[in-house]
Amino acid sequence: MVEMQILTLAEIEDLSFRALVAAGTSEDNARPLAVATAATEADGVASHGLAYIPIYCEHVQCGKVDGQAKPVVTRPRPSVVAVDAATGFAHSAIDLGFEALIPAAREQGVAVLSIRNSYNCGVLGYHTYRLAQQGLLGIGFTNAPASIAPSGGAKPVVGTNPFSIAAPGVDGQPAILIDQSASTIAKSEVMKHAREGKAIPVGWALDAGGNPTTDPNVGLKGSMAPSGGYKGVGVALLTEIMAAAMTGATLGIDASPFSGTAGGPPKTGQFFIAIDPAATAGDAYLTSIVALAQSIHQQEGAHLPGDGRRNKRLSAQEKGVAVNKATLARIEAILS
Amino acid sequence: MVEMQILTLAEIEDLSFRALVAAGTSEDNARPLAVATAATEADGVASHGLAYIPIYCEHVQCGKVDGQAKPVVTRPRPSVVAVDAATGFAHSAIDLGFEALIPAAREQGVAVLSIRNSYNCGVLGYHTYRLAQQGLLGIGFTNAPASIAPSGGAKPVVGTNPFSIAAPGVDGQPAILIDQSASTIAKSEVMKHAREGKAIPVGWALDAGGNPTTDPNVGLKGSMAPSGGYKGVGVALLTEIMAAAMTGATLGIDASPFSGTAGGPPKTGQFFIAIDPAATAGDAYLTSIVALAQSIHQQEGAHLPGDGRRNKRLSAQEKGVAVNKATLARIEAILS
Repeated sequence: MVEMQILTLAEIEDLSFRALVAAGTSEDNARPLAVATAATEADGVASHGLAYIPIYCEHVQCGKVDGQAKPVVTRPRPSVVAVDAATGFAHSAIDLGFEALIPAAREQGVAVLSIRNSYNCGVLGYHTYRLAQQGLLGIGFTNAPASIAPSGGAKPVVGTNPFSIAAPGVDGQPAILIDQSASTIAKSEVMKHAREGKAIPVGWALDAGGNPTTDPNVGLKGSMAPSGGYKGVGVALLTEIMAAAMTGATLGIDASPFSGTAGGPPKTGQFFIAIDPAATAGDAYLTSIVALAQSIHQQEGAHLPGDGRRNKRLSAQEKGVAVNKATLARIEAILS
Repeated sequence: MVEMQILTLAEIEDLSFRALVAAGTSEDNARPLAVATAATEADGVASHGLAYIPIYCEHVQCGKVDGQAKPVVTRPRPSVVAVDAATGFAHSAIDLGFEALIPAAREQGVAVLSIRNSYNCGVLGYHTYRLAQQGLLGIGFTNAPASIAPSGGAKPVVGTNPFSIAAPGVDGQPAILIDQSASTIAKSEVMKHAREGKAIPVGWALDAGGNPTTDPNVGLKGSMAPSGGYKGVGVALLTEIMAAAMTGATLGIDASPFSGTAGGPPKTGQFFIAIDPAATAGDAYLTSIVALAQSIHQQEGAHLPGDGRRNKRLSAQEKGVAVNKATLARIEAILS
């Protein structure tokens, strides 16, 4: 039985902020990460919420991330914002970048944000969501250490690399929000099965020779299965090109792991595209995106990606979120 | 035994051009489509090459596409080019749009091209390829009549909607070119099995209730299976949002079919994003994209998407292409 405790979103943010600062993170870097942690708990993605705070703190202390980093923003072209995250947290680099990206996208019709020397950005859809809240269509990419092999090969070359798209709707919430990785299943699920000594279903992971396996430990030494076979590799490559090659960040083949304390900063990257629908489609945009979402909601049993998170978010703002007491105890230990 | 005949790329272009004009297409609209047809045959994608010329001619004659259309280019914002294809061919609309898109992307760092009231654009990767030849990273989306159902539903809401990305390389050819649809298999393969009275493998298509089927005719009345399940639906939605909602084109749920002569113009859309890698990543881009491609080519048996087309293209420029004599006879009939 997992014991839970209800916290308000403000309490989650405050607890996260204090723990990060206690571990050696500057206030400027801790605040965006604390806000994101509360939002992630609100969305019901507990795996990437408070549970990550002790890991972030450990990574500041071991030097995998520089808690005191000062990201540097440049504007190489009218529609391009670039941020060197200086091996600091991705969240403060993204927030600084968005300050320039959002007005640029409105003026130019489209603008992009290229971030290098960065770190795991948490839930990617949290960031595209905020672009949609501003009335912009947001597309995001983030890369990760290699764990998916190419078609015909067995050695990993790209990460489970998610992409996200958030399409603005009529009520300040995205009409559609997609946030999906390129693998059949999250790597964290395979790691969980390994910890618990359970077999994994065929189709989740491959051994070092590229053959199917039900042993999670064999899979972790091999590669993650791409969703839909070679088309999943295509999506992972799309993301690797955007988040690493197009930013000057470290490729997944060279990046140090996000987990554990070894290897120094991963120096991975993020890439965001923000487009003003009013510029590309005029008034037709809202009519069309609402009709598309309705065509799915009108079917009994059918749902859109993002529906689950949206419902949880609306509930969490009123009622708070139940969080794991063991996680809270780990965070309290950082503060004491 | 299919009888074949070798044609040079110039002969394929010329034959396509003359047939399109004979069917009532203006020279301005016929030329881009004829050039694309030769390039598609060079890439070895025979299904979308000369075999499509009789269909295009039939569609001009029945009014599914306006052969005399004059696409209208506007520039709503500094980084946005919009084209109303006026129910004409997509190819001339894209070519006109690219004339403005390419210099805009260089100046601004990124620019987008939004096309509405358009038609099937043939092989999507042909268009992104040309952006990569100009040293720009090209991303493309094109939508199609609905044939994929949402997660939890059974009624199609999005097409098999491909996306494409072409990343420029060192030799004027893309280092990586991805061009993939959101379904497990092309709908044309299911139609081919139906014509030949053959069963289809489980996993290609679903019946009208959303259950697996091996009967191609039942599948064609139901829906196409998304690649990798709900993640394939996510890719199809990404493309539908970009190619339809973001352009003001017709959604797949409302578009008339691309095949046959009924229903009038489909009025679907295309969306392209062109980004200058020098603006977002500086010199790091080329080093990185070459290292990524090499990490795959160095593995025995592994290959990149686009490798096959690239090899065929280089051979076709020297040696020409073997084309089906029955297809040639159908085209000659249009000319006589």
